[in-house]
Amino acid sequence: MDEDRLIAHVRGLVHGDPAGSLGIGDDACVWTPGGATCLSVDGLVESRHFTKETPPEAVGRKAAAAALSDLAAMGARPVGAVVSLHCPTHWDSMALMDALISELNRHGCHCFGGDSTGSDLLVVSVTVWGEAVEGSRLLSRSGAQTGDLLVVTGSLGGSLHKGRHLCPEPRFPEGQWLAQWPATHAMMDLSDGLAADAPKLAAASGCGCLLLPGSVPRHPDVDEHNDPIRQALCDGEDFELLFAIEAAAWPSLQVEWPFDTAIHSVGWLIEQSGSYVEDPYGRVAPSPFQGFSHRPR
Amino acid sequence: MDEDRLIAHVRGLVHGDPAGSLGIGDDACVWTPGGATCLSVDGLVESRHFTKETPPEAVGRKAAAAALSDLAAMGARPVGAVVSLHCPTHWDSMALMDALISELNRHGCHCFGGDSTGSDLLVVSVTVWGEAVEGSRLLSRSGAQTGDLLVVTGSLGGSLHKGRHLCPEPRFPEGQWLAQWPATHAMMDLSDGLAADAPKLAAASGCGCLLLPGSVPRHPDVDEHNDPIRQALCDGEDFELLFAIEAAAWPSLQVEWPFDTAIHSVGWLIEQSGSYVEDPYGRVAPSPFQGFSHRPR
Repeated sequence: MDEDRLIAHVRGLVHGDPAGSLGIGDDACVWTPGGATCLSVDGLVESRHFTKETPPEAVGRKAAAAALSDLAAMGARPVGAVVSLHCPTHWDSMALMDALISELNRHGCHCFGGDSTGSDLLVVSVTVWGEAVEGSRLLSRSGAQTGDLLVVTGSLGGSLHKGRHLCPEPRFPEGQWLAQWPATHAMMDLSDGLAADAPKLAAASGCGCLLLPGSVPRHPDVDEHNDPIRQALCDGEDFELLFAIEAAAWPSLQVEWPFDTAIHSVGWLIEQSGSYVEDPYGRVAPSPFQGFSHRPR
Repeated sequence: MDEDRLIAHVRGLVHGDPAGSLGIGDDACVWTPGGATCLSVDGLVESRHFTKETPPEAVGRKAAAAALSDLAAMGARPVGAVVSLHCPTHWDSMALMDALISELNRHGCHCFGGDSTGSDLLVVSVTVWGEAVEGSRLLSRSGAQTGDLLVVTGSLGGSLHKGRHLCPEPRFPEGQWLAQWPATHAMMDLSDGLAADAPKLAAASGCGCLLLPGSVPRHPDVDEHNDPIRQALCDGEDFELLFAIEAAAWPSLQVEWPFDTAIHSVGWLIEQSGSYVEDPYGRVAPSPFQGFSHRPR
């Protein structure tokens, strides 16, 4: 694949740039942010995040969605993206970019350009940026407090063996709603599994966490005959939101929550640092669960 | 290399975040831009841009400098960067990140975070952003006009066989000066060789270009016994500035230019689209030169 042909193809997909901005084709893109701006980069690597049999469209879609999920987890509105594509000739880079840009556009995110080279291994890295919705704020991981309730959207587990990990759904409406809801203290997206990610949110907020494994909503993709609780806590790549709220606001949240997406409380933030679990009999022990890591596959 | 250990190491290298910003450790970084913002991503791939024998420090330094060079070519002041690192275990990712962040810092660019995964091939992609210097502007490739003079900083050629391509020097002072100088119409950095890059600037401005190969300043790394003009025009990875100015302003530029870095006029923008060269006898022909492309090495 010739880089110039690919750029021409991508130009054709991106119908003009937003007013006052400069997109594909210069040394850098240019835009004028409206205020506080959040930016994240997320990369996918062949044989770690997907296999050589994965359709290029699935790689492109996932690359965009996984990056956008980080913006959703800030409560942001997506604005733009640039793509760094390192593509062997036997991968269909045009099909990949078609799907990638289509997924960006589905969320109102404009493709402002990028960089493309050959490679012996497909690696695609997407940088996305966004802004707070007007009158709202951006939610970091670090605002939670001891006594806060941990809540997740959707249901968890089984994303890998059923292929759900290839089509994450960035939770923009839910994230933006939570950013404007006053009792939300901290938020992140779940990529390494609740057992690994909840302690990150807790540590960023100077707390520990106590998870209630029996309360974690299990996705239908979970194999109920094979340690289902472990799958829900450890499988990773759920791309759901994990957020901490003032505990007393939980009933209000249940009443006010305007989405079909389910919400479940799955634990607490505690003073004691570290990660703990409560068993069905109310006994507390250090968490025996490890999260997901991207070993070769 | 464990991702958490690498993140802890990088956190240690980055001494706190600028006031009002949020750096490493959240789903996204956050900062508040001062106005028009330019952003670019540049990726390096093992066996294309460097070999498995290249020291990790050289890879890190080049990854930062090559990305920053795109900001310099906008006349921008660098602000921040995020890094997407895909690193096999046999590469020293800490040494790479040490050099990368040190190069960012040397130019006043703050590392705001990134993403790190394992890989079977080292791929590092750096996204950088910057802003116009106060009271100045950002210079795109597209503002040049027929009759403009094409000028380059420094000297060109031979960057690959002597290893100079590993330590590009982003031309920030020169780029910023040219952005505030009224007669500069367009600018870019030279990465694929003057013969390939000058036509890009010309096409973006709706013009063609006429290069004067005998006037192109040759770097001491050029082998003068082996088609030296071709090396200067085609070797690539010079990371010098190419800019178009109002032709009548050339004498003023020579007088006012405040830097030790040399400047040479190397051609013209012309009405006729395409790329042409003038031989020593003043005869004009379509350009026979191809630029550099990143074939496997």
